[in-house]
Amino acid sequence: MENLDPFLEIAHKLADAARPVVRKYYRTPVAVDVKADDSPVTIADREVERTMRDILNAELPDHGILGEEHGRENTDAEYVWVLDPIDGTKSFISGKPSFATLIALCHNGKPVLGVIDQAITDERWVGVMGQASTMNGVEISARECEDLDRATFFTTAPELFTGDSQKAYAAIAEKCRVPMYGVDAYAYGLTALGLADTVVEIGLQAYDFCALVPVVEGAGGVVTDWSGTALTMDSRGDVIASGDARCHQDVLTTIKAAMA
Amino acid sequence: MENLDPFLEIAHKLADAARPVVRKYYRTPVAVDVKADDSPVTIADREVERTMRDILNAELPDHGILGEEHGRENTDAEYVWVLDPIDGTKSFISGKPSFATLIALCHNGKPVLGVIDQAITDERWVGVMGQASTMNGVEISARECEDLDRATFFTTAPELFTGDSQKAYAAIAEKCRVPMYGVDAYAYGLTALGLADTVVEIGLQAYDFCALVPVVEGAGGVVTDWSGTALTMDSRGDVIASGDARCHQDVLTTIKAAMA
Repeated sequence: MENLDPFLEIAHKLADAARPVVRKYYRTPVAVDVKADDSPVTIADREVERTMRDILNAELPDHGILGEEHGRENTDAEYVWVLDPIDGTKSFISGKPSFATLIALCHNGKPVLGVIDQAITDERWVGVMGQASTMNGVEISARECEDLDRATFFTTAPELFTGDSQKAYAAIAEKCRVPMYGVDAYAYGLTALGLADTVVEIGLQAYDFCALVPVVEGAGGVVTDWSGTALTMDSRGDVIASGDARCHQDVLTTIKAAMA
Repeated sequence: MENLDPFLEIAHKLADAARPVVRKYYRTPVAVDVKADDSPVTIADREVERTMRDILNAELPDHGILGEEHGRENTDAEYVWVLDPIDGTKSFISGKPSFATLIALCHNGKPVLGVIDQAITDERWVGVMGQASTMNGVEISARECEDLDRATFFTTAPELFTGDSQKAYAAIAEKCRVPMYGVDAYAYGLTALGLADTVVEIGLQAYDFCALVPVVEGAGGVVTDWSGTALTMDSRGDVIASGDARCHQDVLTTIKAAMA
């Protein structure tokens, strides 16, 4: 793998370009379309992704791109950028500043660089494989948490969980110390800051989770799917991110027991 | 009732004094104590309320005070200030900027002035009986929403609802267009801004809801308890706030049917 520093510069350039577009549409009456998967999309999502793709096409024409709104380009390439222009579109539409622009770089499918950018609160988390993660340039680290009983647990909404996964959610919400809701990718940023302990979600797409992996891991945390396997661009989208490996193991055990 | 303008000035003074204290403790490792009702409290909650009480005692010694952390003083007075130094202490502890300082003035028990202040995102909602509500000094208004089927519905967490009220929550979450979670009093601010349609909660205390009433009503919305009765300082703490009276009525009907 090449030195990632030049790619990190590009990632910052993408996030810098996304911000004015996000701010332009924030809390304005944008039209909301509903996509095939029933999720909402606005002109802001589309324009932010277009802006980032134009930069990547110009600067790194050999790299692939997988984006939420404008699909796949050259995704068999060694390096693929995985983009969610506005993760938490429902929050964006409601004027709640917990959505984020997610930017990941995958090397042979593995997330090696991630940015979580919140344009309204002016917060940018950066994770690069093998380096300490940062928030607004300051090194951050996750906190200790021995087990789920002591954990602040985040998930976006109980409605994420359907079928058997409802049992897993119910067991986690019951066992944890504090269940918290509603902040999309921002919850992973709080975990990397040592302010939350575990985030459990399901039904995510590559563009929802790839950027989170280097941020949480570079803060000393762990990110896997619900079976404990590391995430790649092709993972299913059941995600656990924890600040402490012991709590992470407890979540895995709790899920396995609940769904047995 | 006296002219409320001088009291509004005092309310701003309280919110201005609360902000630096909130900011001083935000995302720092504050000790968390658990109160008799199992809710958390930090030095930030206590110091913010102390700061506001000192101002009220000095400026309006004849007025009563009811605060979350330091109890009741002279609450039989004609005017009583109802204070929640940090509504959403769990969010505050998790570093999530959706908590708020809530300041209400009640006249003979009825909320006539309310402030919702978010110190980190720098947002202040103000409602005064008989006047248009404002956010950061700009007039705001709720939006139209014919019924719950078209509504963005907010509540803090499903765990708020126990016993029979779980049926009401389930019916609302099922019927609404988008269920959203996790932002405490901020959700009422979003409703007053015309970005959300209805907030339904239960088990609140006077200091959780009094400030919200003038803000939402002054933006054209409606706030009642679950039976449709206007809220006073002595209400039970089951709350519905909606931007449009038609949606509000639909929520009332849905609750009644679910709990019948």
